[in-house]
Amino acid sequence: MPSHVLVAANRGPLSYALSDDGELTARRGGGGLVSGLSAALAGRPEALWVCAALGDGDREAVRRGVSEPGVRMLDVPEQVYADAYNGIANSVLWFVHHHLYDIPTEPVFDAEFRRRWQAYEAYNLAFAEALAAEAAPGAAVLVQDYQLALVPGLLRERRPDLRIGHFTHTPWADPAYFRVLPAEVRERLLWGMLGADRLGFHTEGWAELFRRCAGPERLGRTAVAAYPLGVDGEELRRLAHRPEVDDRLAGLRAEVGGRRTVVRVDRTELSKNIVRGLLAYRELLVERPEWRGRVVHLASAYPSRQDLAVYRAYTERVAELAREINEEFGTADWQPVLVSVQDDFARSLAAYRMADVALVNPVRDGMNLVAKEIPVVSEAGCALVLSREAGAFPELGEDAFAVNPYDVSETAAALHAALSLPDPERAERTKRLAAAATALPPEAWFLRQLEDLLG
Amino acid sequence: MPSHVLVAANRGPLSYALSDDGELTARRGGGGLVSGLSAALAGRPEALWVCAALGDGDREAVRRGVSEPGVRMLDVPEQVYADAYNGIANSVLWFVHHHLYDIPTEPVFDAEFRRRWQAYEAYNLAFAEALAAEAAPGAAVLVQDYQLALVPGLLRERRPDLRIGHFTHTPWADPAYFRVLPAEVRERLLWGMLGADRLGFHTEGWAELFRRCAGPERLGRTAVAAYPLGVDGEELRRLAHRPEVDDRLAGLRAEVGGRRTVVRVDRTELSKNIVRGLLAYRELLVERPEWRGRVVHLASAYPSRQDLAVYRAYTERVAELAREINEEFGTADWQPVLVSVQDDFARSLAAYRMADVALVNPVRDGMNLVAKEIPVVSEAGCALVLSREAGAFPELGEDAFAVNPYDVSETAAALHAALSLPDPERAERTKRLAAAATALPPEAWFLRQLEDLLG
Repeated sequence: MPSHVLVAANRGPLSYALSDDGELTARRGGGGLVSGLSAALAGRPEALWVCAALGDGDREAVRRGVSEPGVRMLDVPEQVYADAYNGIANSVLWFVHHHLYDIPTEPVFDAEFRRRWQAYEAYNLAFAEALAAEAAPGAAVLVQDYQLALVPGLLRERRPDLRIGHFTHTPWADPAYFRVLPAEVRERLLWGMLGADRLGFHTEGWAELFRRCAGPERLGRTAVAAYPLGVDGEELRRLAHRPEVDDRLAGLRAEVGGRRTVVRVDRTELSKNIVRGLLAYRELLVERPEWRGRVVHLASAYPSRQDLAVYRAYTERVAELAREINEEFGTADWQPVLVSVQDDFARSLAAYRMADVALVNPVRDGMNLVAKEIPVVSEAGCALVLSREAGAFPELGEDAFAVNPYDVSETAAALHAALSLPDPERAERTKRLAAAATALPPEAWFLRQLEDLLG
Repeated sequence: MPSHVLVAANRGPLSYALSDDGELTARRGGGGLVSGLSAALAGRPEALWVCAALGDGDREAVRRGVSEPGVRMLDVPEQVYADAYNGIANSVLWFVHHHLYDIPTEPVFDAEFRRRWQAYEAYNLAFAEALAAEAAPGAAVLVQDYQLALVPGLLRERRPDLRIGHFTHTPWADPAYFRVLPAEVRERLLWGMLGADRLGFHTEGWAELFRRCAGPERLGRTAVAAYPLGVDGEELRRLAHRPEVDDRLAGLRAEVGGRRTVVRVDRTELSKNIVRGLLAYRELLVERPEWRGRVVHLASAYPSRQDLAVYRAYTERVAELAREINEEFGTADWQPVLVSVQDDFARSLAAYRMADVALVNPVRDGMNLVAKEIPVVSEAGCALVLSREAGAFPELGEDAFAVNPYDVSETAAALHAALSLPDPERAERTKRLAAAATALPPEAWFLRQLEDLLG
């Protein structure tokens, strides 16, 4: 049956685990976006989610013809997938849009890069062909993110009748940084994106950078707009009050012992700026010794992309710096930093509930949902220290302590101000932050895009 | 006697060497700019060059009261100088204007940075006070470069009667990159620069980036214009035909053995992109095996800023990569790359004379005089492979092979095209390149600024 609403994303709403005895088990993915999209698509028999088979379980499911209604997994050859996803999307496009390269030596666009680029083309083509085959006449297709930047163009060639949208969850590169890419790659990315009827970004700032990269004459009939993804407050509060979270909370409370908390939760992703966050916390303890013994920094920093050397080195640096701070300032009954490297959502939610101060200081971030989640869940109200370079800044900045993420002294001063905020003002700010954070929850975010695409 | 025309620059026109028996000897500095400025100031008894004492000899000269007419050296305390020059100018401002930081970990603006910033303030103040004391009423002061960005503002406070110009020899940062700096530092730099009546840059592009960083309402009465520094063709040809250069040329000819040459001459400065140049040369030998045995890459890459770990690592990588290429492709009678790490101007000029192809591929460069010097000196005419990010590009781009400096494959293809250029076209292009390169030689460059400042 042809579908009338299609979502295309690298990651699907479920994955398959393959047990030792060859049995396949489907598991629904977590995360606010996946839940929200699933909710928006639920009860739409005409909807289809097209995604890549990610692991061995997924591939085996495709080969056996196992599937769930409303989901189509693409079994892209493993090497093509690795070259496209790791070799281009995560090593090139992610770095370009987040401005992360060590410019004197990286990137290098050589013959090997061009071989990987062909894989990116093939991976995007696989999605475009699947979508072209599955879509009903005039159907709406909502393509997700930088892994699939060519899909709108490739799909438009095959199915000019479709309404095609694309949403970028990362920042978009500044025009000066975009110019790092080889000319034909820039050209191809813009061509791919401009195959869409509508392009969405988290902020008007990223949308404007895209417009400037494309140039006014090329935008043509493609509309470019901001849809700032928010959180589902009710659902998040429900998740945060499950018994397993209560258990974690009791454990953390015992460790923290009634002290103030500065909470951060991130993957150890280069853009998240965890190292400078720790340096700022150290400068706080040096410059404002009155906080020694009275505050604990709960830093969830769970490993990410450990296949890349630069990420392994970064993760190592985070652990090392936390150790240094604990050695320098720690006492018999006070450990200044508690780092958790487990990707444990229940523990993160427990930390959210305890947060007096939330530290969100990325060097560049498409949105950053942690900045929106903590104020919604925090029990006593929390003061937010927020980077001006986070996509969440335009919505939350007015009630946050704004920082330049490179400025460790400014961040230390902001931590002090946030820790010192009188309770009534903290409660007021938290209320406004939570309201802004929940303004456009995932389901509404998706439906608004769908409506704009069809309208 | 008060001076009517003053130049302020970190480096002066001469330096003093201190011998073991305590004798001081003055030496005139080399380099096109210093020679040109010296020529422009010669025969002006009312002119004064204010500069910093750089080494022990210079400091000793200041202490003994030894000086040359028309030069005043400032004996800034050694630690202040080191913090200002290495700690701020070369480690921060140079990196910001050239976009060189490894953003996930650098820069870190902490309390230590702010201590160094105070040294930069003190160093700039020393210049401003000396200039204020030496300048005749209504005198013209021409301040040079990013080391002295605060001097115009500080001088304006002391001497509102003066005509103050400032010239930036580096690029200017893109506004998105300039935002990396702490807010008060950005503010202070703009305040310092906008103390001038006129600001000069090598290109209209850098001038426009400055205007965008300052914002239209702040520019006020400060004029911002491009003065693209060129070379003195006659003088350069004279230097290139001295006997010592002839000697070096004979030696190089013996090594190269009648093969084509690809010539580059740079400090091993991170922005010069020597590593990607070598990678492009390697890709040329892989993709176009017809050049094996028929071309030699003469790469002068003399060590620079070896007090910084990142520069030492870069210098090491250059040497290592050259070795790898020679091992992979070299034969009994052919060494594909000849790296010279001596800062030997005579050898560089000899290489210029032999150049069939000049490779100038910086990731970002204020001007790049090598791109202008080689076509002027090259004997058989040379084809220029030139980065679009070099300040020389607007003047020379039309007759060059343009490359994206990150695109090693494009650079390899440009080397092939440049090596394959038919002789008559090469001669034609070289003639036009040399004409553009000599359009505004140093003396005229200086006098035009002086005229505009007084006019």
